[in-house]
Amino acid sequence: MNTLEVGKKLVELCNKGQHMQAVESLYSPDVVSVEAQAMPNMPAEMRGIQAVIGKGKWWNENHTIHSSTCQGPFPNGDRFACMFKFDVTNKPSNQRFQMEEVALYTVKDGKIVREEFFYTGG
Amino acid sequence: MNTLEVGKKLVELCNKGQHMQAVESLYSPDVVSVEAQAMPNMPAEMRGIQAVIGKGKWWNENHTIHSSTCQGPFPNGDRFACMFKFDVTNKPSNQRFQMEEVALYTVKDGKIVREEFFYTGG
Repeated sequence: MNTLEVGKKLVELCNKGQHMQAVESLYSPDVVSVEAQAMPNMPAEMRGIQAVIGKGKWWNENHTIHSSTCQGPFPNGDRFACMFKFDVTNKPSNQRFQMEEVALYTVKDGKIVREEFFYTGG
Repeated sequence: MNTLEVGKKLVELCNKGQHMQAVESLYSPDVVSVEAQAMPNMPAEMRGIQAVIGKGKWWNENHTIHSSTCQGPFPNGDRFACMFKFDVTNKPSNQRFQMEEVALYTVKDGKIVREEFFYTGG
């Protein structure tokens, strides 16, 4: 798949709520994942698909997802961007919040090798 | 100004329709500008603030802007992203179209040194 095809597949899966399937089918084993901010017990930059899967599990276990949308893909060369919107409740704090973020993906040999998230943190 | 402050100022100016003022006040003289696609008589990548100002003039002279919004900034480190939405008529073809694009900016020493645009072209 080329960059745009990977992007369309990722958006399709994320809009079905199948984020983990997107990671498992579209990500390189050596993917690098870069958050805008470090989180508790989680550095901003992590390496390897297992780390990304672990982050996804942490997110799912700690949040109730009321709604989630992914808009895009917006391509440029070997990269594409998406806009995510979330309405979630953080389970430990029981606080509900809405969040928007831009995600930027780099594709090499048909797989996502880098994901970067842009947002204003709480 | 730090990255977030530059981003907030850019969004504020763009939402007032003052794109050119944003370029003149926030861009480095050596800025690099990267479109998703080359345009007629315009390569995808251009260098220098005069080239960016020239591109902005070309855009303004060839389009009637019905509406234009800029959402953001979404920061990560020394970069921030924005989402632009345009409703414009291309004057030469008299065709009206709506467009969304993600813009990604890199800030160094308080100035924008790189802008990259992500979109699906016509």
